[in-house]
Amino acid sequence: MDRRIKEILQTPAKEQELTVNGWVRSKRDSKAVCFIALNDGSCMSNIQIIIDKENSNENLLNAINQLNTGASCSVNGILVESLGKGQTVEIQAKNITVLGEAPDDYPLQKKRHSFEFLRDIAHLRPRSNTFAAVARVRNAMSFAVHKYFQENGFLYVNTPIITESDAEGAGEMFQVTTIPMEKLSGGVDYTRDFFGKKASLTVSGQLMGETYATALGNIYTFGPTFRAENSNTTKHLSEFWMIEPEMAFCDINMNIDIAEEFLKYILQYVLDNCQEDMAFFNQHIEKGVIEKLENVIKSEFKRVTYTEAIDILEKSNEKFQYPVSWGIDLHTEHEKYLTKHFNGAVAVVDYPKDIKAFYMKLNEDGKTVRGVDILVPRLGEIIGGSERENDYETLLGKIKEVGLDPEEYSWYLDTRKYGSVPHSGFGLGFARLIMYVTGMENIRDVIPFPRSSKNLKF
Amino acid sequence: MDRRIKEILQTPAKEQELTVNGWVRSKRDSKAVCFIALNDGSCMSNIQIIIDKENSNENLLNAINQLNTGASCSVNGILVESLGKGQTVEIQAKNITVLGEAPDDYPLQKKRHSFEFLRDIAHLRPRSNTFAAVARVRNAMSFAVHKYFQENGFLYVNTPIITESDAEGAGEMFQVTTIPMEKLSGGVDYTRDFFGKKASLTVSGQLMGETYATALGNIYTFGPTFRAENSNTTKHLSEFWMIEPEMAFCDINMNIDIAEEFLKYILQYVLDNCQEDMAFFNQHIEKGVIEKLENVIKSEFKRVTYTEAIDILEKSNEKFQYPVSWGIDLHTEHEKYLTKHFNGAVAVVDYPKDIKAFYMKLNEDGKTVRGVDILVPRLGEIIGGSERENDYETLLGKIKEVGLDPEEYSWYLDTRKYGSVPHSGFGLGFARLIMYVTGMENIRDVIPFPRSSKNLKF
Repeated sequence: MDRRIKEILQTPAKEQELTVNGWVRSKRDSKAVCFIALNDGSCMSNIQIIIDKENSNENLLNAINQLNTGASCSVNGILVESLGKGQTVEIQAKNITVLGEAPDDYPLQKKRHSFEFLRDIAHLRPRSNTFAAVARVRNAMSFAVHKYFQENGFLYVNTPIITESDAEGAGEMFQVTTIPMEKLSGGVDYTRDFFGKKASLTVSGQLMGETYATALGNIYTFGPTFRAENSNTTKHLSEFWMIEPEMAFCDINMNIDIAEEFLKYILQYVLDNCQEDMAFFNQHIEKGVIEKLENVIKSEFKRVTYTEAIDILEKSNEKFQYPVSWGIDLHTEHEKYLTKHFNGAVAVVDYPKDIKAFYMKLNEDGKTVRGVDILVPRLGEIIGGSERENDYETLLGKIKEVGLDPEEYSWYLDTRKYGSVPHSGFGLGFARLIMYVTGMENIRDVIPFPRSSKNLKF
Repeated sequence: MDRRIKEILQTPAKEQELTVNGWVRSKRDSKAVCFIALNDGSCMSNIQIIIDKENSNENLLNAINQLNTGASCSVNGILVESLGKGQTVEIQAKNITVLGEAPDDYPLQKKRHSFEFLRDIAHLRPRSNTFAAVARVRNAMSFAVHKYFQENGFLYVNTPIITESDAEGAGEMFQVTTIPMEKLSGGVDYTRDFFGKKASLTVSGQLMGETYATALGNIYTFGPTFRAENSNTTKHLSEFWMIEPEMAFCDINMNIDIAEEFLKYILQYVLDNCQEDMAFFNQHIEKGVIEKLENVIKSEFKRVTYTEAIDILEKSNEKFQYPVSWGIDLHTEHEKYLTKHFNGAVAVVDYPKDIKAFYMKLNEDGKTVRGVDILVPRLGEIIGGSERENDYETLLGKIKEVGLDPEEYSWYLDTRKYGSVPHSGFGLGFARLIMYVTGMENIRDVIPFPRSSKNLKF
């Protein structure tokens, strides 16, 4: 294949001939010379194509006319040192093949477009600087996730998307069916549905992940999960990718150690591998985002109990919108305050059992559980996890207490019935992490085709 | 964290003290000594724990009684050279903490279980040798997929799972809804559904992948896809992971080059990184599977046109179940014959347009398209791909011809309207590839929790 612009821009100019393919970002045409900024998505920078009009053949002169913003072409030319600003090399065109023109109604003309406008053309927005950068950073972060876990002996497990369990307390679920809904009248015979029973889209792979962790040690999931909540905010999607590692022979403290190491690894990977894109976000999207990430990497995460955290909040002179008292769930304003108080990331552990999920391990005090939320500056919670209840009878009691059907969870209970082990895990919404890393403020702008209430295009 | 068995087994015994955690696979108890085979999922091999009963404390003697097959424990002891067969090191126990017992009704007692039986306890089957090996190989192959693409400048793109397009000709779709189906009677008002319109589970990320490839160059998807087909076979799942790379400035020949290189890379990665598990599959599941994979890696893939392939099949003396003539879709028997004829993998190109998808590029002959199927020995088709039709008018005509609504595909057509480029891609069912690599014969045994018609457990 022909070389890509990212590589060409790092090549010392030695008058070599080469071919480069890409899309026209802009064209400056004067009497004597025409400059074309060409981009191929491999990096944010364009390569400059120079056409010396006075010494040009007809092919080049025709190409100039056809190459509007958005058009695609293949350029054959000589790589030379650039005398202009902003690039070290450029290409003196010898021949240009126009691959596809872009009519004047091309929506991405060279000017600033609002993110809202671009959201409407999600199929074209990766051709813009911001969304191409988001795509590259998202890619790097995905790979960093896999790399971290693979280097540390975790197995990637694909837990199912379609599930029969329709509870878990994690949120409202989408139903999956092949029954022709138009023909229904008063009642559904689920034995006639595709799976012979009611089916839903998963809200989390954790419980199934636990069955693999309690057989293979360390595992992680990284896949789509779903919430049918009518939350029309900048922080909620109906479909989003989650990362959920689960570790056997691992208590809450080792869990926090791993979460801290994992988070720092991802951040460092992005800073190391996406310098150009991160510089762009730092300059145009969130001033200081790089320093923010560097500080998280440098810091040692503080660890406090929920009870200590409440104490700190109560003693502060801060006016919170939501009043603070032992037993409340922490709100973003409280979480942000705690990260300011400690001047860095904080892991809050031992939450009141009534505000956390049924599977968290009960502490000896009988009123708190080994849950943990990891809070980071400017955002609040980024990771939630826990040591899991591994005592069969305690877990069974809890399942009954919260009104779930033990029969439906018999497979989950089996992991505690047969060779139960202390184990822990955490969950991380991938889109939230990308927002934190890039500074992008709307979650719909960090996933290619966002899905939310009344919003399903493409 | 404590070290894992895979690492300990590679550690030279120097009488060092260590702690190891795992599950009891078997116990041999005699008057003087007790041997426990302990496994932690990090590898197939167990580590042997020796309890010298004559010089034991009460802790150890109690542990022996509690540690049935399936029980979990943490063993503290001395790593010593093993005098027994089958291992180089073993652990002389000093102290054992029983973490969880396993009652006698533990379903995975030490004996052979049928895959069918194990499928019913999919939450416990990763504790068996075969399914632990499948999980490790699946993990290695997943990472190899990412590694290959990352090393070659491809961006990972998460195309959406919930889609509005309900056609494409790829198969029957699941519907996604939040409308209470029980309350329906004669008609559905989709404006009241979650997305305000009818929604389905994706059958392929390709078309959306193309929008990213025609902005960023090389991309790939790797995620779950869905088919609501009532195929109750050993080769079909309703939910399965697909790998779909898409490359801009890439014609059908470069497409085949990449597919060939990619496939060989994955196979080589598994042979290099899963030697113990592959030896197991080679011995117990498919004799000669390693040699089969090595031959694919060593061979240069043959390339023939569909027309040539039909000619070869017609001239053969083979009695095929499905008669051969120009225009038929190739069946597995034909594909296998072709790999035998060429003694290796074969890429068949230029299929009749009427048996291939609408988006494939029409050849100049007007009757074939630039589709390709890659066939491998003993299996047949493993990869299907094509150069995509990149001419706006031709694609629009084709969309109308096959009865799709151009309005619904306007976003897809935009990629040909604005800066269209030659581009190509292929698709690969991940589970099929795992079957090929491991020799496992039922697709339900290479995914953790399989979903198919009338089959939705967990």
